[in-house]
Parts: sequence; structure tokens; C-alpha cells
Amino acid sequence: MSIKINENYKNLKESYLFSEIGKRVRDYAAAHPDASIIRLGIGDVTLPLSPCVIKAMHAAVDEMGSAATFRGYAPEYGYDFIRKAVSSYYSSFGVSVSEDEVFVSDGAKSDVGNITDIFGDNTVVIPDPVYPVYMDSNIMNGRRIKFINATEENGFLPMPDLLDGESAVIYLCSPNNPTGAAYSHDQLKLWVDYANKSGSVIIFDSAYEAYISDDTPHSIFAVEGARTCAIEICSLSKSAGFTGTRCAWTIIPRELTAGGVSLAHLWERRQATKFNGVPYIIQRAAEAALSERGRRECAAMVAYYMENAAMIADVLKDKGIWFTGGKNSPYIWLRCPGGMDSWTFFDHLLDKFRIVGTPGAGFGKMGEGYFRLTAFGNKDATAEAVRRLREGL
Amino acid sequence: MSIKINENYKNLKESYLFSEIGKRVRDYAAAHPDASIIRLGIGDVTLPLSPCVIKAMHAAVDEMGSAATFRGYAPEYGYDFIRKAVSSYYSSFGVSVSEDEVFVSDGAKSDVGNITDIFGDNTVVIPDPVYPVYMDSNIMNGRRIKFINATEENGFLPMPDLLDGESAVIYLCSPNNPTGAAYSHDQLKLWVDYANKSGSVIIFDSAYEAYISDDTPHSIFAVEGARTCAIEICSLSKSAGFTGTRCAWTIIPRELTAGGVSLAHLWERRQATKFNGVPYIIQRAAEAALSERGRRECAAMVAYYMENAAMIADVLKDKGIWFTGGKNSPYIWLRCPGGMDSWTFFDHLLDKFRIVGTPGAGFGKMGEGYFRLTAFGNKDATAEAVRRLREGL
Repeated sequence: MSIKINENYKNLKESYLFSEIGKRVRDYAAAHPDASIIRLGIGDVTLPLSPCVIKAMHAAVDEMGSAATFRGYAPEYGYDFIRKAVSSYYSSFGVSVSEDEVFVSDGAKSDVGNITDIFGDNTVVIPDPVYPVYMDSNIMNGRRIKFINATEENGFLPMPDLLDGESAVIYLCSPNNPTGAAYSHDQLKLWVDYANKSGSVIIFDSAYEAYISDDTPHSIFAVEGARTCAIEICSLSKSAGFTGTRCAWTIIPRELTAGGVSLAHLWERRQATKFNGVPYIIQRAAEAALSERGRRECAAMVAYYMENAAMIADVLKDKGIWFTGGKNSPYIWLRCPGGMDSWTFFDHLLDKFRIVGTPGAGFGKMGEGYFRLTAFGNKDATAEAVRRLREGL
Repeated sequence: MSIKINENYKNLKESYLFSEIGKRVRDYAAAHPDASIIRLGIGDVTLPLSPCVIKAMHAAVDEMGSAATFRGYAPEYGYDFIRKAVSSYYSSFGVSVSEDEVFVSDGAKSDVGNITDIFGDNTVVIPDPVYPVYMDSNIMNGRRIKFINATEENGFLPMPDLLDGESAVIYLCSPNNPTGAAYSHDQLKLWVDYANKSGSVIIFDSAYEAYISDDTPHSIFAVEGARTCAIEICSLSKSAGFTGTRCAWTIIPRELTAGGVSLAHLWERRQATKFNGVPYIIQRAAEAALSERGRRECAAMVAYYMENAAMIADVLKDKGIWFTGGKNSPYIWLRCPGGMDSWTFFDHLLDKFRIVGTPGAGFGKMGEGYFRLTAFGNKDATAEAVRRLREGL
């Protein structure tokens, strides 16, 4: 006799992707102690925080050290100054989002995971390959998951023709992790129309929007009709290098309802009950990152990474290797040459070129035969990796 | 036709406690513009962060600004340095907790709310009056809640004789919010024995342990047998003034299982899926707060607040008013004099003494007729409030 656990957890699969990568790299390094290994597999940023963010944090730390300026509990959804900064940021690419539709949090991963709390027993639609959190957080809740296949044929951008008109909670990530593919305005319009017609809700993950350099939408709310069918989750992790600093936001329009209930109100209840706000110091850091100067400094970081992406993309083009991403995204998703499977190519790349990447099979069954490279490395190291590939691939 | 929401949210009651307090205070202030109102109702700290915490944060901010020392994604359960610091902190009051049993998070409220994810459909036992998060987070999951009454007769410390031997998830908070009452070692031993015998799990909220000044246990793991039946959630919010800085931890012993499954492992899966770690800067702040110097500085803050508590307790004693807390706790929970109900006494205290407190009825039906005062105010203001009460009560 004992209490019951959440049995759904037994349906989770342990992911061995990054531990297996780590093991193979360690084994290779042990066998080849002089090999200069270059890591193009990491999904983490490497450039330091921008100067105005550092300055804002020092000032906020000092405020916390003085009784006159000390801050205790923050508003659960974010201080007015940061909700306003996010709203202004959206204005900068022509999207109107009001301050009370912005809910600030410690991370997109938290919001993607926690948003499942407010939904009932719906069908959940998830692309394959996929960022694993969409899947695992819904397995934990016991939801029916319907995968839609991202393939070379659809440019790794699955469309609603794969669905049967059923209402569902639909996860879209654009520019995509892991594939780097990004939906056009017209494609997103088809998704929005499908969602409004079927009574579905789209969870739109825009964590990589800062990498967009053309007219690809930065936000699903650039698309007409999205305010009645979409929730957007965005983050400063990749745009401002906040992976270890932690600040993100979720946008829920006031028009968005299900069964007559405001989803923004449900999220307010969820967050007010189970969250106590982002550290004041971090909110000031985020405000600085979103300021005019901050945006300039962050754009320079993005440009640095995108030069890496361009170098990788160029060598793949020259070698005639099919890929998505590299444009509007720090990720390059390539078809393994010579029909190799993902792990065979991993070993080949490591053994022949001393380059570490990420096997596509680790992101879902449709990732088999594909491979992810990332632009988050050091520029000289990336250039050296590209030189090796140019010579030997 | 539309997606389904989590219908359990409809069973949540809106809490008007703090908004109603705010409204009455604003109305009073508008009618009496010259009145010097003293707030003894707040549950938030007011002293600034300690010097060594400020110093550690400045250093960590600088690390984030340099490529050589920049930190990206943190380990989901906390850096080794902070898990080690928490383990050492427990050693300082004689409790052995290993580093891999410490899971660092952004707040006790988050952990108290999110821990419900890992449990199945159990009966949940919650004391009344109560910190509302225990209740609301379980209403959101549709759990059966059994309240156990905290009363003057049991010293606001309900014991397991109120239960029927059924296995349950049991919430205990000691020293208690809102009552300030704290379980002795013998009382906790009865709870631990009950839990082990019935197959229950105790969620032990020790957020106020730093206010203990006698042999009251700082941790449920000071009690033999707790490692097979208890999870402990603690925070730096009240001990180090981190309400706006955000750092807490949950301890799950490796021996703790349910249905043969390790609860620590379930929590690891939950956190790895839906959480991405505490900001590096904040983890360094927490490490400083838990260092030897940090503990001394934080103890001085606690001592400051406890002098306030002692002043409040003294006047109540002198006036013959029954109360709990004020010892081992920054909260004083008093019986409203003259048989007044909570809100009548609120108005009386505001109108006659220009003092704001918190009506006990706001924490549950057993709180009716009781009232919470807190020691988190400024010392001069608290002394002035006490002077007014001494003269007029």
C-alpha cells in the first residue's frame, strides 16, 4: 500500500542522444589524444552577454543591496517595464501585442512544458523530427500524440493537409529546431486558417526568430487570424545569449478562448499559483537586451553566428549535399551523404574530420538519415571545420 | 468545436484576500490623508541582500560578460557548487543530505506547485489554515483534498490522529505559514511513523527554518525514518531575503519510492523536461548566502526581524491575547480580541491603530476569528505600532 505515482512517466523514453554523443567523443579522444576535435553539435550559445546587459545587471545588483531600492516579490507575470519592452520589441517588426498579453518567465522550456497544465484531454499534433520537450511534456499528461512527418518533400515544413480536420493542440516551431526550416507567411496563414476552422490551438515556438533576415514572419501574430488560435513562446536564450541567464515570454491574446474560457486567464491562474516571477536582476537584463542599444548588440552576436552558418552552408552547397536551414536559422540540417544513416555519418565525421555533430535520428524517426550542424561555435574553429570538409568530403 | 481546457481550473476560487486588503487600506488612506499607516501584514522581506551576496553577484555578472568565463545552459538540477553548498548547510544543523538529493530551483512556490506532476490520483491532506498553493495546485490536478483542522486546541499543529490510516500525499509546513506554529521533534516523529506505516508521502515545507532558535527541527530529515517517506522544500526567500532573487531547493532522498519507483528519478525527469536551471548569477548568489560569511550575515537579518516579532509577542502577552508563533517564526497568529471576526478586527486595527494586518479567514475556514501579524517590517515602524497597541488595545 502506497501512494500512486503519475503512471504516464513510465511511457517516457530515456534519451541517450547527448550521453551517447559524449561517450563516442570521449572514446575517440582517448584513442586519439592529439586530435583537434571541433564541436559543431552544440545547441548552446558561446558569445558572452552584451555590454549593455552586463551594465544593467550590475546596476540592478546594486539596487538589491540597498534598503531604499531593494525589490522583494516581483509581479508573477513580469514587471511592467519588461512587459512593455517585449510589446515594443514586437512593434519593431510590425506586430501589435499589448503589455497584458505578455507573460514573462524563466525560459521557453518551462513555458512549453507548463502550458500543458491548462489544457484538457486533446489530441496533440507534433512534427517529427522535433524538440523533445513538446513530446515528453504531453506524454507526462497522458495525451494522444499524432505526429506529422517533416520530410525532404515538404522541405521539413509539414502542412495542415496532413490532418483530418480534428481540433487539436498543434506545436509549430519556426525557424525550426532541429531542422532550421522556417514557415513563410503564406504557409503560416494556412496553419492559422486550419486552426480557426477546426477549433485548434497552435503553440508557436519562435525561439529562433532573431535569426530571420528576410520577410519570413518573426511571430505568428504577423498572420491575420492568429489572435483567435495561437499562443507564442519566445526566449532571449538564442537572440541575446541568455541560455544561462534565463528569461523568456509567452504571448496569449485576449481574444483566444476555448469553450468560452480565456486561455490568458487560465495561464494567469497557473503562473500565479505555481510561479513567483523572474529575478528582478534578470528582468533588468532582459529589458536592456530589448532596448535599442541591446538590440544592436544582440544583432551583432546573431550576425557572428550567421557567418558561421553561411560558411557551413557554402561548403554543403559546393559539395551538392541537400540541406535546410543556415538561412534564417543557426541550424543546418543535412542529408547524410552516400546514404549513410545518422550515427554512421556521426562516426564518419568524427573519425575522418574530427568534427562532432548531432545525428538526426536523435530528434525522431523522420530524422534518420539526416544530421544537424550548428553555427554557435567559435568562428576560427568553424572555419577550420569547414576547411576540413571542403578538402575531404 | 474546440479544444478542451483543464476543467479543474473551474473549481479554483479567486482569492480576494490581498486585493480586498489593498482596497480597504486605500479607502482608509483616502479618507484620512494624514494617517501614518503601518503595515504589519506583508509576507515579503524588506532588508536588502547581504554584502557577500551582492559581491558574489557582481563577480558572476562579470564572468557572464567575458567569453572565457561565460556560462550557457546550467545543469537542470543545479551546478555542483550549489548542490554541495546546500548539502553542507544541512550538515551545519546535523542533517545528512547528499548532493545528488538536492534539486535547485527558482522558488519553493514553483516546486510546491510542480511536485504535483509526479503523483497519481491520491488523496491529498492539507492543514487548514493553509498556504493557498498546496490547495490550488491540487485542485488544478483534480485531486481529492482532505483538510485537517489546525485549532487552538492542537496549537495549530494538527496531528495524524485526525487521519484514518489511508495513504495520502500530506502537506506540512513548519514553522508554519500563516500560523507561526512549529512541530517539535516528537510531533514530527509521529507524522513520519504514520507516513511510513500508511504508505504516505509528506511534502515538508521548511521555508521558515532559519527562524528556529531552539531545538525544533530545521528539517524533517532530522527525524529517523523520514528518508523513506518525505520530500522537503526549502528556500532562501525568507532566510536570505531572496523573494525577488529566486532560489530554492527540493530534497528527495534516494530511498524514497512509491510502487517501486524512485521519486527522485521522477522529479529528475520532470525538471529535465520542463525546467532549464536557475540563472548562473543567482546560483552564485545562493552559494554566497550559504557560505560561512553569508550565514552570519543572513542570521543578522533574521535577528533583526525576530526583534520585531519579540516586540509584537510581548505586547500580546501583556494584553492577555492568545497567539502562536513569534518564536521560531516571523509570523504571529493571534486570536482576535473580544470575539471579533477576522475582517472586523482588520477594520478595527486599521481604524483605531492605523495598523494593517492579514485576516486569518483569508487562509481557510479555520482561520476565522484569527489574525496574522508579521515581523518583516522596519524596526522603528514596528516599534511605533507596538506602542500604539500597548496604549490602546
